[in-house]
Amino acid sequence: MERILVGHRQLSYYLQAVNEIGKTTAGWNRLAYTEAERSAVQYFLEACEKIGLVTRVDSVGNAYARWEGVNPDLPVVLCGSHLDTVRNGGPLDGTYGVFAALEAVRTLKEQGITPYFPLEIVVFACEESSRFGVSTVGSKAVAGQLEADKVRRLMDRDGIVFDEAMVSWGYSFDRISEAARDDLLLFIEIHIEQGSTLESNGEQLGIVTGIAAPTRFQVTISGIASHSGATMMSYRRDALPAAAEFILAVERSGLAEEGYGTVATVGVCEVYPGAMNVIPGEVRLQVDVRGIESDSKQRVVNELRMSLDYICQKRRLEWSWNSLGDEAPVFMNIGLNQSVAEVCSERRISYRFMPSGAGHDAMNMARLCPSALIFVPSRGGISHNPAEDTDEEDLLLGVEVLCEVLKRQVMLGVI
Amino acid sequence: MERILVGHRQLSYYLQAVNEIGKTTAGWNRLAYTEAERSAVQYFLEACEKIGLVTRVDSVGNAYARWEGVNPDLPVVLCGSHLDTVRNGGPLDGTYGVFAALEAVRTLKEQGITPYFPLEIVVFACEESSRFGVSTVGSKAVAGQLEADKVRRLMDRDGIVFDEAMVSWGYSFDRISEAARDDLLLFIEIHIEQGSTLESNGEQLGIVTGIAAPTRFQVTISGIASHSGATMMSYRRDALPAAAEFILAVERSGLAEEGYGTVATVGVCEVYPGAMNVIPGEVRLQVDVRGIESDSKQRVVNELRMSLDYICQKRRLEWSWNSLGDEAPVFMNIGLNQSVAEVCSERRISYRFMPSGAGHDAMNMARLCPSALIFVPSRGGISHNPAEDTDEEDLLLGVEVLCEVLKRQVMLGVI
Repeated sequence: MERILVGHRQLSYYLQAVNEIGKTTAGWNRLAYTEAERSAVQYFLEACEKIGLVTRVDSVGNAYARWEGVNPDLPVVLCGSHLDTVRNGGPLDGTYGVFAALEAVRTLKEQGITPYFPLEIVVFACEESSRFGVSTVGSKAVAGQLEADKVRRLMDRDGIVFDEAMVSWGYSFDRISEAARDDLLLFIEIHIEQGSTLESNGEQLGIVTGIAAPTRFQVTISGIASHSGATMMSYRRDALPAAAEFILAVERSGLAEEGYGTVATVGVCEVYPGAMNVIPGEVRLQVDVRGIESDSKQRVVNELRMSLDYICQKRRLEWSWNSLGDEAPVFMNIGLNQSVAEVCSERRISYRFMPSGAGHDAMNMARLCPSALIFVPSRGGISHNPAEDTDEEDLLLGVEVLCEVLKRQVMLGVI
Repeated sequence: MERILVGHRQLSYYLQAVNEIGKTTAGWNRLAYTEAERSAVQYFLEACEKIGLVTRVDSVGNAYARWEGVNPDLPVVLCGSHLDTVRNGGPLDGTYGVFAALEAVRTLKEQGITPYFPLEIVVFACEESSRFGVSTVGSKAVAGQLEADKVRRLMDRDGIVFDEAMVSWGYSFDRISEAARDDLLLFIEIHIEQGSTLESNGEQLGIVTGIAAPTRFQVTISGIASHSGATMMSYRRDALPAAAEFILAVERSGLAEEGYGTVATVGVCEVYPGAMNVIPGEVRLQVDVRGIESDSKQRVVNELRMSLDYICQKRRLEWSWNSLGDEAPVFMNIGLNQSVAEVCSERRISYRFMPSGAGHDAMNMARLCPSALIFVPSRGGISHNPAEDTDEEDLLLGVEVLCEVLKRQVMLGVI
């Protein structure tokens, strides 16, 4: 028998229960469309049914729980996030947003509210790119923006193709259009910041102005693999020191644009053949550049292209540059943001308007309907890491604000 | 029926035949104690038996072919190399030395020579470190220098332990002492240079003065893995740019000691967790420093330790440094080298005395008995790579010199 606690204390119960799923000593592993992720979704659906919501799962695996409104034909107020994790991820990224929404709805029900508009909670499928290299698949499908043919044949580390992974759960790219929605009034997502801006500034809540969608590319530097003992230093065509210079150029160009909130990261560096006695003949780097200011982001990309060419010419190496995606920044709804800010002000909760460096489902939803994204602080700014953490007080404050914002929206024009 | 050609043309026949084994589109793969490597050894044994040599395989898998001398009780003139390769290696590293020896012996037989001293050809087991991370295992055992307990439990990529790999072929660390020899007069190895010194200087043969045994270590740099989009540049504790600075420090310190023939290489760079949207929390580097001048090598190691500490302090990162081996340079026998030089002079073959940056079985043998190591040029200095190549003319010249040197040694005091 599941305990139903009064107030927001139920949140920690939900989080503890769902985080038993996919938990390992190295972190949480609930990769998209795996047994673990789907079990977490199942836990969500059952928890929603227990408080009387009506559940369904769409054609790509997005899970919904609906609280019918007084007028079922009105557009829907939607709130939610995702339950999939990166490899060895943390307990709150996405997961907090889903159960904060559930806890907010549970609280509204407990308060005896009757929503005028229908209210739904959503768990988006495949938000993280960790399994197939493509992110926010579920919300893209909802927003009618998923290019199925670009995604269908992507392969995970075990050689499983995206298509097959979906079909094994009964979902399909062929029925993708069924996942698109045109009945939404608005979307709200609450999420951990995954950075340390709020913590550093001692603020309790972030209201996101815009999301810095990433520009991503793969750089391959090719030299000549040869014997590490027998090749004198000046005869070498070692790809790794060139890659090292490029990695530092990426860091420098990010630092130069810090004032604009732009960041640049090399997260993947693969060295071939990768033996101690062989000079590296090839290095592949994957680079992620993000910023809400398009000009700033472009300056970084331009400078890196020039740097790469200069480094490789100087070292007599070959290079190639392959784009892995280039998305434009997305802006959140000013009216909704104002409504969040009002709730904070009334309750004397300190907040800041801020850009988001991380991509979120709200980024796709904002193209479909007015959307808001709310941040709670991340301890030490740590995320995508099992040490990911947020003070209980901050988690509950987030639910409180979300609850009040949702209440005002579902009663819009009524109260 | 195998063709037996006159003169040295048989060499290319041998090489072609043995290099059908373990050949892939990415290069040659005859890793130590694999089916492919043992098949190559089997081919060698059969080729030796065809010309009347008596074969045996010892307790660690070293293969021998013996040409009995007039006086079987005299110490043995030994000549040979190895048949195992690195991953995606080339067709000549080791392999040339084995079949050059066989071709030299075949030629001496054809010339009607009767050796006074016994002459043996050896194929050493597990010369390359590519499978278990430890090199020249067979020759270490012959020289009585193999520390079995340090090697026994080493594991390959597939989780196979060294011990088990040996036992599966009937060899064993438990009978290691049986492989040690005390009946050797001298050892000669011929090998491709694997560097471009001979080619760059237009010389036909290298006579190795000393072998720069490697000092190897693993460096681990630890920062904090966090979200690549949400963590501003100056809040990061990214392990990868620190690793990049260290990689460049390794290159710089090698270049600074170039005059002493010292080289320094980072061949392995592993980034964790290795995802495009996660700032690297940990990087592991494997470094290989080689030089025939101990002081020069030590200067590189000292400077790198200081650099690492400086880089990590500056960037608020943790580091660790684990030695993977630190061997002293080994010098070849001056008398034997002089004998090789005489043969070259008589035949107007251009040669140079030179150090070897690469480790070889001769390095262990030199601790046991007077030893020589002869180099033929490598095209473009390329080795540990399928493009590894040497002009046919140079390969045959090597056999000619080896043949003459062996002849003088087995007839020592007779002709």
